Amino acid sequence: MKINTIFNVFTPKDVKFFPMLDEMADVLVEGANQLELIFSSSKDQIKDCCHRIKDEEVKGDKITGRISRALNDTFITPFDREDIHALSDRMDDVIDTINRSAQKIMLYEPNILPKYMERMAVIIKQSTHEIRQAINELPNLRKNDKNIRQYCKQIKTWEREADVIYDEGIIRIFHEKMNTVELIKMKEILFELEMSVNKINQTGKFLKTIVVKYA
Amino acid sequence: MKINTIFNVFTPKDVKFFPMLDEMADVLVEGANQLELIFSSSKDQIKDCCHRIKDEEVKGDKITGRISRALNDTFITPFDREDIHALSDRMDDVIDTINRSAQKIMLYEPNILPKYMERMAVIIKQSTHEIRQAINELPNLRKNDKNIRQYCKQIKTWEREADVIYDEGIIRIFHEKMNTVELIKMKEILFELEMSVNKINQTGKFLKTIVVKYA
Amino acid sequence: MKINTIFNVFTPKDVKFFPMLDEMADVLVEGANQLELIFSSSKDQIKDCCHRIKDEEVKGDKITGRISRALNDTFITPFDREDIHALSDRMDDVIDTINRSAQKIMLYEPNILPKYMERMAVIIKQSTHEIRQAINELPNLRKNDKNIRQYCKQIKTWEREADVIYDEGIIRIFHEKMNTVELIKMKEILFELEMSVNKINQTGKFLKTIVVKYA
Repeated sequence: MKINTIFNVFTPKDVKFFPMLDEMADVLVEGANQLELIFSSSKDQIKDCCHRIKDEEVKGDKITGRISRALNDTFITPFDREDIHALSDRMDDVIDTINRSAQKIMLYEPNILPKYMERMAVIIKQSTHEIRQAINELPNLRKNDKNIRQYCKQIKTWEREADVIYDEGIIRIFHEKMNTVELIKMKEILFELEMSVNKINQTGKFLKTIVVKYA
Repeated sequence: MKINTIFNVFTPKDVKFFPMLDEMADVLVEGANQLELIFSSSKDQIKDCCHRIKDEEVKGDKITGRISRALNDTFITPFDREDIHALSDRMDDVIDTINRSAQKIMLYEPNILPKYMERMAVIIKQSTHEIRQAINELPNLRKNDKNIRQYCKQIKTWEREADVIYDEGIIRIFHEKMNTVELIKMKEILFELEMSVNKINQTGKFLKTIVVKYA
Repeated sequence: MKINTIFNVFTPKDVKFFPMLDEMADVLVEGANQLELIFSSSKDQIKDCCHRIKDEEVKGDKITGRISRALNDTFITPFDREDIHALSDRMDDVIDTINRSAQKIMLYEPNILPKYMERMAVIIKQSTHEIRQAINELPNLRKNDKNIRQYCKQIKTWEREADVIYDEGIIRIFHEKMNTVELIKMKEILFELEMSVNKINQTGKFLKTIVVKYA
């Protein structure tokens, strides 16, 4: 039903959803900050970063659970509940893929972490910052819809850049005549970083849908 | 609620959904036609095909977005809205995997494109034609439900054939003692083609669910 | 809307859902039993196990279809219908990944099936038994919610164990200097087993959500 808009949903009683979504956005930003740090770290420091990312991933799971339970305890129609649920789910996917990227780097111990992978990590970090800014604007969606659109557009731009980096990276991996094990390690890590960018972009796309729907 | 049937939903006011679903079906057919063309093309022509497929994928994204917004602007219950949304989402998945198949062929430049891959592409093309015919029948679902069932059955038959081709292809790749890079390229391309067949079959399965529900 | 609880949904008229969910749980258990058997079987016996698992997968598809149609024929609100649908879908994902694991073992014919893979299969078997017990308790959810929570907790514990086994398995595969084809076969089979564990855990997580919501 179109009767409920996000503004009905987020009546005084329901404003609790905003801080939880903000917390979730912080999880993404902190996870992505640590992911970028990996690329300028020693082996031991890499482990620290990965453990911190894992902590954020666990925190993300808990926040998603709290949002889900809060949605069940609140009188709102399924339609809008679905949107909040979907948004928190998509952010949970982001921290999951960031965590998987980090775990693969720690576990596989590739001989090198090339520049193009670091560039992907920088894009991931920057994009999660945009996500957080967009999420922070949600309580004032009607007034600030242009800002949110702008953040999502920026994410889309970076996603296209990441696509090019990924394609070039795969070609390099295929051409550099490394041994099989290294080749597979590199491909898997690069793939996981690309997945993170995709999941961030999907979150951005969904934020744009919310703007279209409620602004 | 079972009160709404697709016929209530598609009241005069809402017939706009049919042309959009038809457009989406055209995107799949055109993408799949180009994918098959790749296998009888020179290197330069392959690039043209891939760019055309990419264009269809972008078009698919836009149509999905339009359907999604139209659903929000139309007074219908969530239940049936979900079905239209799910149908357009599944078709979007099909063009995404067709595009990924094409991109991988262009990017990886494998030494050969074996016959069994071409056979997969032919199955993909034929199946998207069945999807389009089924989608075209939706406005007359009640009268033509047998036709739609027939299209879906044909898709299922081809999906089983594609499964056999995939399995045989993988075994060949493992037995042909090609070098690591070629092996990985071949495996990835074949996997992506198989994913396209799967996504088409899932669309077919969903169309059958719609028939069961509303015919 | 929060008006419907699972107890309203499952009014006398709708108890038919419980036996269907039980049947689905049996499919998972039988599939997982056969999967474990593979690891103590001769080559010919492996084929038998795989065919039996395939049969269960087909049966799972049919049950999911029946649940889906029954949901359409029953007067319940979308919200709770979604939960039943999602639960049966998640169980269907489990038997799909179990089947894919078995098919890959049969198709790839790896030189060895190492102990850590068998340990994964044991975890899968044990976890599907927990799923079945939890599903069996659903009709008495309110009285037995503690039991269901306990089954889900056990699944979560095994999932963590499987994560460690997977990580150690991948490192072994990378270190054992096997040839490329064997390496890829092993990695793919291990990945598919890990996917099965994940899908079981997701079913467990969803069962916990149901407990939180309705108990």
